[in-house]
Amino acid sequence: MEDTGLYLRHMRETAPLVHNITNYVAMNIMANVVLAAGASPAMVHAREEVGEFAGLAQALTVNIGTLDSDWADAMETAARVMSGQGRPWVLDPVGVGATSFRQDVCARLLDLRPDVIRGNASEILALAGVASTGRGADAADPVEAAEAAARELSHQTGAVVAVSGPVDYITDGAVAYRVRNGHALMPRVTALGCSLNGVIAAFLVGQPALPATVAALAYYGVAGERAAQAAQGPGSFQVGFLDALHALTPEKVTAGARVEAA
Amino acid sequence: MEDTGLYLRHMRETAPLVHNITNYVAMNIMANVVLAAGASPAMVHAREEVGEFAGLAQALTVNIGTLDSDWADAMETAARVMSGQGRPWVLDPVGVGATSFRQDVCARLLDLRPDVIRGNASEILALAGVASTGRGADAADPVEAAEAAARELSHQTGAVVAVSGPVDYITDGAVAYRVRNGHALMPRVTALGCSLNGVIAAFLVGQPALPATVAALAYYGVAGERAAQAAQGPGSFQVGFLDALHALTPEKVTAGARVEAA
Amino acid sequence: MEDTGLYLRHMRETAPLVHNITNYVAMNIMANVVLAAGASPAMVHAREEVGEFAGLAQALTVNIGTLDSDWADAMETAARVMSGQGRPWVLDPVGVGATSFRQDVCARLLDLRPDVIRGNASEILALAGVASTGRGADAADPVEAAEAAARELSHQTGAVVAVSGPVDYITDGAVAYRVRNGHALMPRVTALGCSLNGVIAAFLVGQPALPATVAALAYYGVAGERAAQAAQGPGSFQVGFLDALHALTPEKVTAGARVEAA
Repeated sequence: MEDTGLYLRHMRETAPLVHNITNYVAMNIMANVVLAAGASPAMVHAREEVGEFAGLAQALTVNIGTLDSDWADAMETAARVMSGQGRPWVLDPVGVGATSFRQDVCARLLDLRPDVIRGNASEILALAGVASTGRGADAADPVEAAEAAARELSHQTGAVVAVSGPVDYITDGAVAYRVRNGHALMPRVTALGCSLNGVIAAFLVGQPALPATVAALAYYGVAGERAAQAAQGPGSFQVGFLDALHALTPEKVTAGARVEAA
Repeated sequence: MEDTGLYLRHMRETAPLVHNITNYVAMNIMANVVLAAGASPAMVHAREEVGEFAGLAQALTVNIGTLDSDWADAMETAARVMSGQGRPWVLDPVGVGATSFRQDVCARLLDLRPDVIRGNASEILALAGVASTGRGADAADPVEAAEAAARELSHQTGAVVAVSGPVDYITDGAVAYRVRNGHALMPRVTALGCSLNGVIAAFLVGQPALPATVAALAYYGVAGERAAQAAQGPGSFQVGFLDALHALTPEKVTAGARVEAA
Repeated sequence: MEDTGLYLRHMRETAPLVHNITNYVAMNIMANVVLAAGASPAMVHAREEVGEFAGLAQALTVNIGTLDSDWADAMETAARVMSGQGRPWVLDPVGVGATSFRQDVCARLLDLRPDVIRGNASEILALAGVASTGRGADAADPVEAAEAAARELSHQTGAVVAVSGPVDYITDGAVAYRVRNGHALMPRVTALGCSLNGVIAAFLVGQPALPATVAALAYYGVAGERAAQAAQGPGSFQVGFLDALHALTPEKVTAGARVEAA
């Protein structure tokens, strides 16, 4: 895949409104990430308005991190609106392996055909019905262990599946890529994975899902590498990461992306 | 208006307890903003206690960003307590134009006579019943387009109305000011507008609403200018902004304020 | 107490999964604090899964900051699981003196025998049934005024009680310590106290409660001192604090800890 930076250029020109139904931990940093990248975030979840609001947005993200039944209903309502209008939405099955409630909610959401599913290896394994040792939001399985599950999940759902990790793996079931960008401090800052969903969703607007997702992950990883250069730990890394998302040009993303066919 | 810094001095001497019913995105940064400025924030929303707690606070802010019905009830309960005791409260009608639910909730809240209404141009236009192109929390209308609506809204409600933007516009329906302080990075950090409500509320305690609101916006804008001097993007800007709110003296606010009668 | 750094070493080797039911203000910074320290945080509260999830965690924290009835039920469910399995849990009675709802919820939670209760002086006084002038989350009483109440509360509940302040006081009812580490900027950053609960909980796993709590507070205070060296205000302090939590070695904690028997 060439010229990943073009997807960033297109996203910034579009500056889409991205509707996010996400967890309480992620909300602030996710909004800041989406703003820094160049899109417009909105967090809306109430049953009284979530369907009406989804109709205004160009893309949706759903993240089950701090789930309850009302929020699960809101996720379904919004996802149904997006699917019905042919607008893209991204599912992040946080900790799906941890409880049966999360598995039930994810099963309902998969029926609404997300365009992209992004998770760590443990989550993708659990979602594909494969036994996993995952716990909470932190991955306990290596990315490689989830590649076959990712392809299977893609076949089952029609979604592009992205497995986040030291080397990301992205597949539409037929074709697959690896993204070697990123830095070891990224998983030491909470909710950077959740926040990535908003960037993916913004990149999906008006673009094919597989290369747009790959480009979003490459952009994110290049920003992480740039932030790490001046970081003294996870606090300063987070600050520099937002600065880098804002400062990176399409040209620098293309130059820095380390994407390969898998 | 002269000597805007005096209002900061008074606020810090009072160090009021500000009760905030705000959105999930804003809660952390808003609490940090209010603390950095020199007041004491508290976030309480449960129907079991919100009225009792409001009775302990010197001022209240209400922000409908991530609304649902239970929260709307809590907002009404707390606002009723404040109005009944003659204590100031601030309304931020986030995204009021986006859904009919938000319009209904705002109509109920306007009946409880906020002392200050603060929003972007799109929100003030929507709240004044004027058609707007606004979406989500980001403004799609210039401040100038909302000045007449702000005056009209002030007449309708008795509130001071503040329109945030590159140049803020503040009016009590009769007199109006413009505040030319601030920086272009401020809207690239999520919830800085929401957080401003807490500063306004703290400034309102024991002071007349119009000059206190003007002074709060000038202080906020001067802090933004100071933060921008060393910022390399929205991440470092946010950090420097909290430092600046904490470091600014009343004298520096008076010296830096660019306030003019409109 | 010697060699406080050994507790940090043990915690990092264990890297426990800490389940947190905390307030909306604290969630993000708390997760970042726990990650920076070297443990794994998870935030889960829904009645549909909170008991099942608690069974997966090595420790639990409960913080009543932004309480409502559903969350109170979740807190009870999770605390019951932990107590039943002999796993440690920490109670933070935020603002317990402010409303009768908070007092009722805390009474129910105390029946479930927290291993550690941590609060500011006003909260510990209120929880011990002593009249307090506290309001919201900020302390209005000096630590010294709560020392007798802390001992009494420890006798009543069997918990280690930690009173946070300029000099922390920690007791199991028989023995007591003072921790003189920390910095005046710490209470100017919201939710650093709440976030400390997660560090205490991580330190408790497999260790006796009194020295583990003392060691956690010393580690936290040393990190605050380190962060203050380069801070220009509460914004940069928070960034440096996360960096310091991550960078501090057990040896540096032992060298910097200022712990004394009370």
